[in-house]
Amino acid sequence: MQGNEQLRPVHAFAQGLVEAGVCHVCISPGSRSTPLTIVLSRHPQLHTWLLLDERSAGFFALGLAKQTRTGVALVCTSGTAAGNYLPAVMEAAAARVPLIVLTADRPPELYDTGANQTGDQLKLYGSYAKWFTQMPVPENTPQLFAQAKDTASRAVMKAMAPPAGPVQVNWPFREPLLPPLAEQPKESNFSTTDELFSVTQPTRAFWGKVVLSDEEIHRLAAMLQKSRAGVLVCGPQDSPGLASAVTELAAVWGVPLLADPLSQLRGGGSPIEAQLQTTYDLWLRNATLRESLRPDLILRLGRVPTSKFLGLWLAEVTASQVVVDDGQAWHDPFFRVTGRVFADPEDTCHRLAQCLSQASATVSVGDGPQARGEWLQSWTEIQKISAHSMSAGVKAASGIFEGRIFTELFNVLPSRSTLFVGNSMPVRDLDAFWPNRVSGPTRILANRGLSGIDGVVSSALGACGGRTDPLVLVIGDVSFYHDLGGLMAATRHHLHCLIVLVHNDGGGIFYGLPQATQPDTFGFFRTSHGLDFQSAVEMYGGQYQHPKNWQEFRGAVQQGLAQDTWTVVQVDTDAQASTDIRQSIAAQVAVALGVTRS
Amino acid sequence: MQGNEQLRPVHAFAQGLVEAGVCHVCISPGSRSTPLTIVLSRHPQLHTWLLLDERSAGFFALGLAKQTRTGVALVCTSGTAAGNYLPAVMEAAAARVPLIVLTADRPPELYDTGANQTGDQLKLYGSYAKWFTQMPVPENTPQLFAQAKDTASRAVMKAMAPPAGPVQVNWPFREPLLPPLAEQPKESNFSTTDELFSVTQPTRAFWGKVVLSDEEIHRLAAMLQKSRAGVLVCGPQDSPGLASAVTELAAVWGVPLLADPLSQLRGGGSPIEAQLQTTYDLWLRNATLRESLRPDLILRLGRVPTSKFLGLWLAEVTASQVVVDDGQAWHDPFFRVTGRVFADPEDTCHRLAQCLSQASATVSVGDGPQARGEWLQSWTEIQKISAHSMSAGVKAASGIFEGRIFTELFNVLPSRSTLFVGNSMPVRDLDAFWPNRVSGPTRILANRGLSGIDGVVSSALGACGGRTDPLVLVIGDVSFYHDLGGLMAATRHHLHCLIVLVHNDGGGIFYGLPQATQPDTFGFFRTSHGLDFQSAVEMYGGQYQHPKNWQEFRGAVQQGLAQDTWTVVQVDTDAQASTDIRQSIAAQVAVALGVTRS
Repeated sequence: MQGNEQLRPVHAFAQGLVEAGVCHVCISPGSRSTPLTIVLSRHPQLHTWLLLDERSAGFFALGLAKQTRTGVALVCTSGTAAGNYLPAVMEAAAARVPLIVLTADRPPELYDTGANQTGDQLKLYGSYAKWFTQMPVPENTPQLFAQAKDTASRAVMKAMAPPAGPVQVNWPFREPLLPPLAEQPKESNFSTTDELFSVTQPTRAFWGKVVLSDEEIHRLAAMLQKSRAGVLVCGPQDSPGLASAVTELAAVWGVPLLADPLSQLRGGGSPIEAQLQTTYDLWLRNATLRESLRPDLILRLGRVPTSKFLGLWLAEVTASQVVVDDGQAWHDPFFRVTGRVFADPEDTCHRLAQCLSQASATVSVGDGPQARGEWLQSWTEIQKISAHSMSAGVKAASGIFEGRIFTELFNVLPSRSTLFVGNSMPVRDLDAFWPNRVSGPTRILANRGLSGIDGVVSSALGACGGRTDPLVLVIGDVSFYHDLGGLMAATRHHLHCLIVLVHNDGGGIFYGLPQATQPDTFGFFRTSHGLDFQSAVEMYGGQYQHPKNWQEFRGAVQQGLAQDTWTVVQVDTDAQASTDIRQSIAAQVAVALGVTRS
Repeated sequence: MQGNEQLRPVHAFAQGLVEAGVCHVCISPGSRSTPLTIVLSRHPQLHTWLLLDERSAGFFALGLAKQTRTGVALVCTSGTAAGNYLPAVMEAAAARVPLIVLTADRPPELYDTGANQTGDQLKLYGSYAKWFTQMPVPENTPQLFAQAKDTASRAVMKAMAPPAGPVQVNWPFREPLLPPLAEQPKESNFSTTDELFSVTQPTRAFWGKVVLSDEEIHRLAAMLQKSRAGVLVCGPQDSPGLASAVTELAAVWGVPLLADPLSQLRGGGSPIEAQLQTTYDLWLRNATLRESLRPDLILRLGRVPTSKFLGLWLAEVTASQVVVDDGQAWHDPFFRVTGRVFADPEDTCHRLAQCLSQASATVSVGDGPQARGEWLQSWTEIQKISAHSMSAGVKAASGIFEGRIFTELFNVLPSRSTLFVGNSMPVRDLDAFWPNRVSGPTRILANRGLSGIDGVVSSALGACGGRTDPLVLVIGDVSFYHDLGGLMAATRHHLHCLIVLVHNDGGGIFYGLPQATQPDTFGFFRTSHGLDFQSAVEMYGGQYQHPKNWQEFRGAVQQGLAQDTWTVVQVDTDAQASTDIRQSIAAQVAVALGVTRS
């Protein structure tokens, strides 16, 4: 190897990332990051994704990390480039997604001297980064070689350890980043051999878990056994293991399971359909119904539920509420939690289920089971009636009702697909109008950590990365506009994706909010823009469909899914009309459930 | 006034902003920011700009603040929205632009509880914000009313005080943000009368300046008088007062003035044409020429110069270097500064000039003046010869040479126009190829604080805000792609702007850097994207021109300038060819200056 010997630690770092399980690196172009870009892109076990805009790159990495459930690395140059990652880093922190952010920097002697493109990158992401480290300027010494590899492991493990999240490794590089143009033969100043990537023993990780003792599990199980009106609530979470453990617990405990649209419980194939609650967002809008259901114990898993109305109910009821979380999070904006379990949720559910199952087989447990049976029966009825009423209401709705997009997709989405939903209205409509049975598993994802409308296109495209099963994104037009540039990745990286663009020309959500009462300022919320996105979609190399009715919509979706490329299916809707229909369907559901007033 | 009495402090805050001199507010839509949006947009003395993407909004505000030289306020909702401002806040901090960032937030009781769209916004911009304050949740009390108005003044004055920069005011709002939809008549819950905006006496600002004592000025003037080979270097700066003070000093001191393209000295109409140096970026590439010019005293104003080669010279020469700055900045990545003046640069230059002028009239000052005259003569010759050689080289260049865009624009730009240049190659070509005389003043702006390629479209459009004189932006295609969405503002706000899009399909700068020697990874730097921007420009409502030669280019530019709308003039260039021509012209200039080898 000739040339930049002092960059050997960068090779060790790359190898450390790979050994710690990193498979994907999202690189944005720039000069200061040259050593990272060249070394990481040459590593035979790293898949590199080139993304020109760092903001989109951050969100792409987020989606990729969600889909693959592994830490994804990001590389950018110095200056504002690194600042563009902040929105994705914020979302990753809130949603617990492991990102390893590698920010290239000037060497420390140039900090705060007015050197070009040099800002203060130390702890750039503040409290949003789980961990920050400042690398030494690389030098060819055994110590810095070993330190670089060790730091790579450490960064990945910090990012992956529950609760997962983003970390920042700030990498200062001194010039020459490469030997000057004239002084060296082409292709020689960085080794392309594998030798440098395998000079040390791999570091292996053995992961422990925070678990309750048997005594603590029994104490908790006794609470569950004693309850006569228990409820399980599973908020947004992304572990299939937890989804099945919650299901197992619900089955044994015999209580309703309120499944958030992002709980991975609504994707279909659940063995406890009679217990699964998926329509609560519609009928919990009704105060009489909220008042009529009085649980005595609520066990909550996952993050705070998406539904505002479920939140309202959780804030109103006086039941004991127990939250299970291994991240020491305080997920309770209602201040109603009476029990906190600081332990792995999957292990806790699984062992609670075992414990309840053994107990019911061996000892008398009072009238809890019978009371719970009646309690569950009433919930099952509510779910059945409300689902039927909702479904009928959606079918009867005239025109292109936004909520119907989900009941339609529900029927055409193939199994093993991923549904990614945008924030603002799409995730709310998903919550209210996505039925609870499908033929095969659908994974449902959203950026619900901080619920931003930014970066959604890129996050969904990132979630397409490295897979062949179809992904469908449902997104509103303001959110689509926000990250239009993210579409560049779809063609560049040959992604297979169908985007349903719900176009109501602005922020439709505000028709249902008090801002609509202020005509002189409503334009600042409604924000009509009049954009016709067809030409932008075509500029980025996508197919564009513009169905005018549901039959055409189904055709466009099926055609898009069948193609090996990406398609935008634009559905023009009327935000005011959809707002009215939502309210009307919620009222119909309440009537079907025997309520005459809210 | 009915309704949200508790939001009265927001009215006081709005009035405080106005009294402190704020005229412009850039608002992005969102719910949590409703009180700020409604109150600020209703203030009769505030011009509100609606911008849908917060990243673009941040840069738009930056451009507006540069153009108007006043503090510009920004309003966004909570969560990642606020994170999107970081790139612009970073640039504003480095470039000393006053931004008053108003981030709406959940009330403190919901911090870190898992409440929706709630992150940690306290000191979100870390060391990039000059000042941060957390507002109390507004309540209708005399104290909080007074505090809100006072804090508005304080935020603006903190942002404006030298060195200017961004500040963050975090505003927590508790629900209801407005009374619920059903409970109040329309148009009544916020007063639209002026009464609330004028209940207190305005706060007036009396600004002091950091100035040297007469003794210190004389001490400094004596250094200047004694020097035989002095040089004035004016880096990027944006004060017309400083530009004329530097000019005055140069005239009296009788030394060459190396004028950065962003120094506001190259816009034309300078009374000291014989002293103005504008071609140094070309000939300082030559080591023999760098070596041949040995100054004994360099006085530097403004930030670190744009030219890498001027930087190289400043790092190599052993002269005394004195830097004047009132921001206590340490603008010296070369570690060659031997004198630091911590005082207002304009005052310092003006008083130095006065002092030198009096001295030369009254006392003998040795052979300094004569030696300086010869020294200046040699610089004047160099400038003359190099400008002529450069000009001939540009004219002789075949095809569409990127540098020629500036010599062409030079001839057609009307006086009182603004030229905004993108980073990477445009600002470098401006530096090398923009001649030093025009008929009238042209203001030249760029985002040169951190030299990002992000947000340039929005910054330029912001600099169009509130003015009718034409603005021309010269930008590369990667930078244009980065902020394509920013174009939405142009049509929405009827901006008059001409965008020259230098399209070489990727990062052309890398053809001139060592990365070009690594063919297997060059794609990560060169980043071809193949985008044809015409459809995107038309989607956003702009005119599009695609000239194929210089005659068509001139026609397109003149036509675009004549129209009362915005136009993109796309010029397709060959990055490799332009790289070669730049090198060839620099070599020709060196030969014209009598150097045969570098």
